[in-house]
Amino acid sequence: MDSVPFQIHERLAKGGFELGRHGICRVLLKNNACYPWLVLVPEVDAETVELHGLSSADYAAVCESIRAASAFVAAHFDCTKVNVGAIGNVVRQLHVHVVGRVEDDPAWPGVVWGHSEKRPYAAAQVGPIRDAFLAATAR
Amino acid sequence: MDSVPFQIHERLAKGGFELGRHGICRVLLKNNACYPWLVLVPEVDAETVELHGLSSADYAAVCESIRAASAFVAAHFDCTKVNVGAIGNVVRQLHVHVVGRVEDDPAWPGVVWGHSEKRPYAAAQVGPIRDAFLAATAR
Repeated sequence: MDSVPFQIHERLAKGGFELGRHGICRVLLKNNACYPWLVLVPEVDAETVELHGLSSADYAAVCESIRAASAFVAAHFDCTKVNVGAIGNVVRQLHVHVVGRVEDDPAWPGVVWGHSEKRPYAAAQVGPIRDAFLAATAR
Repeated sequence: MDSVPFQIHERLAKGGFELGRHGICRVLLKNNACYPWLVLVPEVDAETVELHGLSSADYAAVCESIRAASAFVAAHFDCTKVNVGAIGNVVRQLHVHVVGRVEDDPAWPGVVWGHSEKRPYAAAQVGPIRDAFLAATAR
């Protein structure tokens, strides 16, 4: 039987830039310069849409990636607070948001999900963020 | 030096019912019958306001509690999706939301955070949820 190759859901892929991998996750930078916002997409089968549905090993790996991504966002972007969310009500493919927040961002103190303000990155901004992420999380 | 006893933040305590403990977390049921909504409050020092600021052992314990709470909510309330969020922009004490969602709940498909609809539980509803939580997560 042919296995179906893993693909990031079209809405996630179109909405961000792939920074690299961490553990079993693909890591995207959401294309919204209003917030430093990473999206972790575990490379698991399409039926696994809940974190608690992961195997113990995969769950631990994803939690470790959340931790690394959170620490990176907090340090690199000098945030007041990191917000972590696994929601998936609309895009069901398992994915986890790691969002750095500051007190003068457009959604503060509310959550970013469902908030409409968006500002695409300038092309030159993404490379340095990718480099910093890869350097910070290299193991 | 006297240590300060752990206390759940007043806003969290007033907004829910304590169900018990899981690992290092106190577990609250948010007093909003619109959604099956647990809040996990790790018993850590007040300076630790981020998940990634926990020690490795505490982080692993909290992740295990998130997993157990998520599995409980999904199974006991027959949810379409579980939403997990660590936000803390307003109440800074470290806490994690585990919320069961269904397609006809008042906030669907948006997130529950910042959504105004609230319906308190009837007193008789809380005991059975507490019993079920304790039975499901007994180890």
